[in-house]
Amino acid sequence: MAKVLVAYYSRTGNTKKMAEIISVVLKDEGLQVDIKNISETNVDELINYDIIVFGSPTYYGSMAYQLKQLIDESVKLHGKLQGKIGAAFASAGNVAGGNETTISGILNAFLIHGMIVQGDSRGDHYGPVSLGLPDERAIKECQRFAKRNAVLAKKLFG
Amino acid sequence: MAKVLVAYYSRTGNTKKMAEIISVVLKDEGLQVDIKNISETNVDELINYDIIVFGSPTYYGSMAYQLKQLIDESVKLHGKLQGKIGAAFASAGNVAGGNETTISGILNAFLIHGMIVQGDSRGDHYGPVSLGLPDERAIKECQRFAKRNAVLAKKLFG
Amino acid sequence: MAKVLVAYYSRTGNTKKMAEIISVVLKDEGLQVDIKNISETNVDELINYDIIVFGSPTYYGSMAYQLKQLIDESVKLHGKLQGKIGAAFASAGNVAGGNETTISGILNAFLIHGMIVQGDSRGDHYGPVSLGLPDERAIKECQRFAKRNAVLAKKLFG
Amino acid sequence: MAKVLVAYYSRTGNTKKMAEIISVVLKDEGLQVDIKNISETNVDELINYDIIVFGSPTYYGSMAYQLKQLIDESVKLHGKLQGKIGAAFASAGNVAGGNETTISGILNAFLIHGMIVQGDSRGDHYGPVSLGLPDERAIKECQRFAKRNAVLAKKLFG
Repeated sequence: MAKVLVAYYSRTGNTKKMAEIISVVLKDEGLQVDIKNISETNVDELINYDIIVFGSPTYYGSMAYQLKQLIDESVKLHGKLQGKIGAAFASAGNVAGGNETTISGILNAFLIHGMIVQGDSRGDHYGPVSLGLPDERAIKECQRFAKRNAVLAKKLFG
Repeated sequence: MAKVLVAYYSRTGNTKKMAEIISVVLKDEGLQVDIKNISETNVDELINYDIIVFGSPTYYGSMAYQLKQLIDESVKLHGKLQGKIGAAFASAGNVAGGNETTISGILNAFLIHGMIVQGDSRGDHYGPVSLGLPDERAIKECQRFAKRNAVLAKKLFG
Repeated sequence: MAKVLVAYYSRTGNTKKMAEIISVVLKDEGLQVDIKNISETNVDELINYDIIVFGSPTYYGSMAYQLKQLIDESVKLHGKLQGKIGAAFASAGNVAGGNETTISGILNAFLIHGMIVQGDSRGDHYGPVSLGLPDERAIKECQRFAKRNAVLAKKLFG
Repeated sequence: MAKVLVAYYSRTGNTKKMAEIISVVLKDEGLQVDIKNISETNVDELINYDIIVFGSPTYYGSMAYQLKQLIDESVKLHGKLQGKIGAAFASAGNVAGGNETTISGILNAFLIHGMIVQGDSRGDHYGPVSLGLPDERAIKECQRFAKRNAVLAKKLFG
C-alpha cells in the first residue's frame, strides 16, 4: 500500500479544503494518507512517503515562502527522493494570476529531486487550481487529480 | 518491450548527435527505438510509442518552431497519449541561455497531454543540455538520461 | 510619435479580435499602429517599430508555431531590437490552460532580444488573456494593456 | 538621481559578492545605491526606490525562501510599485541547474507588481548568473547588467 503525504500551506482555508478533498479520494483508492499543515511537517518525514503532494496559495506567481522553506530544507535529503511521485495544487488568494507558475515551480522542485510527475489531458493540466473556496469545478478537478495519482502510484509501487 | 520514439530537430548536427547517444543507450537497455528527424515524423505515429523523447536546439528561450509545429498538430491525438512517458533534451546554438526554459516548454506540452515525466537529482535535472557539440560531460548526461527513462519504462510498461 | 506593430496569429478569430481592441486604444493614445497577421509580417520589419506586441492562441502551453517561426527568424536582427518595448497577449482555444506560460514564453523571447517589458499590478499581470471570444472582462484587460504600454512608450520614446 | 536598492540573500557569500560588483557600477553611473542583506531589508522601504534589484542563490529551481518571504510580504504595497524598474541575479550553490527559473521567478513577481524589466541581447539574457564565486565572466555580466539598468533608469526617471 503506497504512502502519501498531502502537505499544504493555507492562510484562508481554501488550500486546506483542497487538501482535504484530495486526501479523501486518495484514501478511497486504498492509499495510506497523511494530511498535514506545512508548519507540522518535518522535512525528514518526506523520505517515508511514496507520493508527496504539496499545495499552496499563489503569491506573486509562486508558492508561499513557508512551503519554499520546506523545499529548501529538503536539500539534506537530496538524492533520496529519486523515483517518488510528486504532485501539486494551488489556490488563488488576494492577487489573481500566477497559478500555473506556482504549480510549475513546485513540480520543478520535484523534478530536481529526481521525482516523477504526471499531467492531465483534461481540466487543470499541471494540477488543480481553485479561485477562492473550491467550487464544483475545482472539487471535481481535485478528485480527478487524486484518482490519477493513485492509479500512477499503484503502477509504480504496487 | 517498450517502444521509444526519439525525434529531434537539428540544424548544426549537435541535437542529432545527442539523439544518437540517447538512442544507443535505450537500445542497450532492451527497448525498441526509432530515431527520426522531426521532418520525417508523422504526428499520427506518436500513438505507437510508450516513450516520446523530443530534442531541440534553444531558440529564444524555447524549442525550434519545427518541433512546436509537430506538438501543435498533436492536438488531433489529444487524450490518447495519456500515461505515456515524455522526456526532453536541448542544445544551445547561436544564442546562449534559455536551455532550461526550452526543456520546460517541451515537458509542459507532455504534461498537458497527460504524460509522465521524471527529473534527475544529479546533473541536468530536467533533461540533458549540450552547449555546442556534446562534450564528455554532455555525453554522460545523455547516457544517464536514457538509462533513467529506460528504468521508468520497465516499471510502467514491463 | 512611437511606432507600434501588433502582430497576431489567429485561427478562430479570437486573438485577432484582441489585436483589434488593443490597436484601437494604442491609436487613441496617439501612437502610429500597424496591425498584421503573422503570415503578412516580414521579420525585417520588426526593426522599424518602437513597440512590438505579439498575440497568439495557447497551444500546449506555448505560442502557436507560426509565431515561434517569426521569432526564430528574428535571430538575423539579434542585438538590433535592444531597448524596444515588447508586450504579449494570448487567447485560449481548444485546450484550456497554459495561457500564462504562453505569454511568459513570448516575454522571454523579448528579454533575450534585450527588450523592455512591463507587467500590470491589476488584472492579467503578464498580459491580457481571453478564454474564447473576448468578453467584457477581456476587452477591459486589452484596453488597460494598450494604455499602459502607450504610457511606457511615451516615457521611453517621447 | 534615481535610487536603487540592491537586496540579496547569501549563505556562502557568492550572491553577496555579485551584489557588491553590481552596486559599484550603479554608483559609478551616478545612481544612489543602498545595498542590503535580505534580513536587514524592511518591506516598507521598497517604496522609496526607483529600481529594485534582488539576488538569490538557486535552491530547487527558484529563489531562497528568505527572499520569497520579503516578496510575499510586499503584498501590503501592492499597486504602489507600479512603474518601478525590477532586475534580478542568481548564483548556483550546492545544486546545479535552475538558475534561469530562479531569475524568471523573481522577474514574474516584479511584473505582477506592474514593474518594468529589461533583458540583455548578449550574455546572460534574463540577469547575471554565477556558478560559485563570480569568475571573470560572471563579473563582466554583473557589470553589463548594472550599466544596462542604469541607462534604463536615466531614461525613465531622469
